[in-house]
Amino acid sequence: MSSTADKTANVRIEKAREDDLALILSFIKELAEYERLSHEVVATEELLRESLFGERAKAEVVIAYDDDRAVGLALFFYNFSTFMGRPGIYLEDLYVQPHARGKGIGRALLVYLARLAKERRCGRLEWAVLDWNEPAIRFYKKLGAVPMNEWTVFRATGESLDKLAAG
Amino acid sequence: MSSTADKTANVRIEKAREDDLALILSFIKELAEYERLSHEVVATEELLRESLFGERAKAEVVIAYDDDRAVGLALFFYNFSTFMGRPGIYLEDLYVQPHARGKGIGRALLVYLARLAKERRCGRLEWAVLDWNEPAIRFYKKLGAVPMNEWTVFRATGESLDKLAAG
Repeated sequence: MSSTADKTANVRIEKAREDDLALILSFIKELAEYERLSHEVVATEELLRESLFGERAKAEVVIAYDDDRAVGLALFFYNFSTFMGRPGIYLEDLYVQPHARGKGIGRALLVYLARLAKERRCGRLEWAVLDWNEPAIRFYKKLGAVPMNEWTVFRATGESLDKLAAG
Repeated sequence: MSSTADKTANVRIEKAREDDLALILSFIKELAEYERLSHEVVATEELLRESLFGERAKAEVVIAYDDDRAVGLALFFYNFSTFMGRPGIYLEDLYVQPHARGKGIGRALLVYLARLAKERRCGRLEWAVLDWNEPAIRFYKKLGAVPMNEWTVFRATGESLDKLAAG
């Protein structure tokens, strides 16, 4: 048995259910705190219910358990590459609680998603990281992921979205 | 009538139909050439048919017409913000043919999408730009969009996706 298998021996990853909503929201808030973006969190259980479990669900969640205790999540959705002509999986949030880090749980979540991407015939798995989050950047590079340094995302939201919509 | 209205007087934007697939693919290839990424284009009409017009469509396309001539497109899909608890619209490709630039067509496409985002109760409109594409960056900033400079996208694709999936 490899050391990786040892480390993650008691870890399992399961699709989230509707009664996990309170847990999901609490993990989202913990992640926002770590990312110093708590002021941006306005999500509620009701909003998440619609987007995660509603008829027109926009995203999916899996939860990581360590010895039957929920310790992290991955929230993801489809994106689409015109150049590949195929969908991809975009990982919006990857979170492991501080006490459970260093056990290979983040890695197990990424491996799970990479397998899911291949099962679903997706061409890519992508996610974004904050530039100051050096432990995460080292971790992602070690896993073989490539930083798309030449691309910058632009965003219109709130007043800038209103202004653009006003034409 | 404002100068903006003058400039775009003959422009209309319409949802793409299945018989636009050849046109869509040709615009995608022209965009890839402009972005110096032609080597990445492996999309075919059949692949696009499945993802744009299939039962489980992953993305949508609108086409811009100038005097009834198709001159550009926007290809987009839903993303999702956990912090907002709402979907957003992600613009994967925005393209206007060189001969039709400077007439407000790119702007008209972005305004169309900003309105669509609001109609669909989305919290954001986002898109990515290549760092060397300074005319586009100036244009997006002028429209009030904000560059998310502190974020970098990581990607696993091809061999790196296989390796990650292998665990």
